[in-house]
Amino acid sequence: MATNKQWIYARKPEGQVGPEHFELREATIPEPGEGHVLVRSQLLSLDPASRAWMAGRPYRSQLEPGEVMAGWGLGEVVKSTINTFSAGDLVSGDFGWQQYSSLPARQLTKHDKRQKPEHILGVLGITGLTAYFGLLDVGRPRAGETVLVSGAAGAVGSIAGQLAKIAGCRVVGSTSSKEKCDWIVRELGFDAAVDYKAGDLIGQLRATCPKGIDVYFDNTGGEMLTAALSRMNLFGRVACCGVVSQYNALQPAGGPAGVPGFLVTKRIRMEGFVVMDFYNRRQQAESALADLLTQGKLKAPVDVVEGFEKMPAALAGLFVGKNRGKLMVRV
Amino acid sequence: MATNKQWIYARKPEGQVGPEHFELREATIPEPGEGHVLVRSQLLSLDPASRAWMAGRPYRSQLEPGEVMAGWGLGEVVKSTINTFSAGDLVSGDFGWQQYSSLPARQLTKHDKRQKPEHILGVLGITGLTAYFGLLDVGRPRAGETVLVSGAAGAVGSIAGQLAKIAGCRVVGSTSSKEKCDWIVRELGFDAAVDYKAGDLIGQLRATCPKGIDVYFDNTGGEMLTAALSRMNLFGRVACCGVVSQYNALQPAGGPAGVPGFLVTKRIRMEGFVVMDFYNRRQQAESALADLLTQGKLKAPVDVVEGFEKMPAALAGLFVGKNRGKLMVRV
Repeated sequence: MATNKQWIYARKPEGQVGPEHFELREATIPEPGEGHVLVRSQLLSLDPASRAWMAGRPYRSQLEPGEVMAGWGLGEVVKSTINTFSAGDLVSGDFGWQQYSSLPARQLTKHDKRQKPEHILGVLGITGLTAYFGLLDVGRPRAGETVLVSGAAGAVGSIAGQLAKIAGCRVVGSTSSKEKCDWIVRELGFDAAVDYKAGDLIGQLRATCPKGIDVYFDNTGGEMLTAALSRMNLFGRVACCGVVSQYNALQPAGGPAGVPGFLVTKRIRMEGFVVMDFYNRRQQAESALADLLTQGKLKAPVDVVEGFEKMPAALAGLFVGKNRGKLMVRV
Repeated sequence: MATNKQWIYARKPEGQVGPEHFELREATIPEPGEGHVLVRSQLLSLDPASRAWMAGRPYRSQLEPGEVMAGWGLGEVVKSTINTFSAGDLVSGDFGWQQYSSLPARQLTKHDKRQKPEHILGVLGITGLTAYFGLLDVGRPRAGETVLVSGAAGAVGSIAGQLAKIAGCRVVGSTSSKEKCDWIVRELGFDAAVDYKAGDLIGQLRATCPKGIDVYFDNTGGEMLTAALSRMNLFGRVACCGVVSQYNALQPAGGPAGVPGFLVTKRIRMEGFVVMDFYNRRQQAESALADLLTQGKLKAPVDVVEGFEKMPAALAGLFVGKNRGKLMVRV
């Protein structure tokens, strides 16, 4: 009989997360109970938020060591006890890091098989919607403004930057290497890039954002946020999406010195958001993104790691800037 | 012939501002040129922002040593070269710290003499409007929510807190002594108070804001902001009005460690504002405040120091928490 491989969250990381914090286990494939659906995972998503869950951030209940690692996935229905799902349906949900999962039907979303699976889990899923609502609803860019995106080669940043270009803005991205800087400009159409590992962030921002910054889409926090605040224009907006620079930190970093001084004198709005708060408009955003993909106006770069065994190493790679675009593992 | 006493901004303070940074000078009374109006100062306003101007904050051009100290005032027209103003009119403007000033007519506002002069310069002037727009437009409290106000015994905070009570909120104020804590509760109707000099801000906030904080009207920045962020509720709002804890600082303090982490997980909006941005709705706010005063629903505490000679000492007192309500000097 087939077994169900699972990655167990084994111990809490102090600092950088790595394979040593996970253990591979083989369990039996669960039998779906009343109202449940058995799903075989095909693609599993890796996100900076995965690390945050291990530290108990409040918008998801904290993971405890010994549990199957949490994570979003796309897969195929194997067996259903409810007539709204049938074997062969393509579904997404919080499968966890495992080959098979049994979930209540109401926690699953059914998808159109004509879409590319990588897109369903990426640009048309949580990361694309995060970029869409965060940029347009929180950042509110206007044509002609300058938009800075940190983590610009990542899953959310790569989409947010392109959406800002489509909105008619000058778009600058920051990322962690010369190669990725070249890539976001050449491949994704950013106007300029900042290599945050090359230092002198203020100087780089001055050079790449000569008219200042109107919207900062912040995936990182840390030094880039501090530098961006010093270059923000009057009535600038900071869409606070994530704090990837901090998830591995042992001690929380000091906050940006420009808060609240620059906020007052420059009338800046800084606003945090979580994509689920916008789910009442999810369908509208999904169609808009799908249309842009179809029309060739939006690229959805994906970084697919082959093999369930590689999940912990792939997660660790997220925090040292290995991926380009949406990172996922093919099970 | 009468002379015009002036306080000159003589040297830039390093740290705490005090009388040693000013020099008293006697000049001749100016003759108003074409389109100008000569005004005799009656009340001169002292504000935390006065200190900020000496450090060159961007929303006002920096003051340079040797210039008459800048500051808002209320006074009487002595001589006018333009038919829109006549001798005896009551006017306000940026008179500077001097007994007489000659200003272009367009920089003056004429006032109704039936209003109390202290109210015109306080609750119906910049500080009252700052409280009004900052609380209602930026903070947007809803009935039943908890509102925290720092600098609650000051000119802006004392009004902001009362407006939050009128909006049906639970209102907690922080200030710098046990006596002022008692005063804002007993005299101004705050529900509870936090003495920030007594330490354990988180513990005090837990005790006084048992349901968390929905709106924080921040006049101070610094440790109170850090503590408030840790107690903010989901979708909380921080109206960033001022940074009085920082104006005398030699080195800018580190920012609040909860930025941007708490902003994301708790979906907090932090927004800076400057009252002038709302001046298109100034009249509406002035009438609303005047009505509340007339109806006895709003108290407008004032702290009037007698004597032009005391201006520098009175300004210094602002930063050590001496005043209760709006501080001004009678010339």
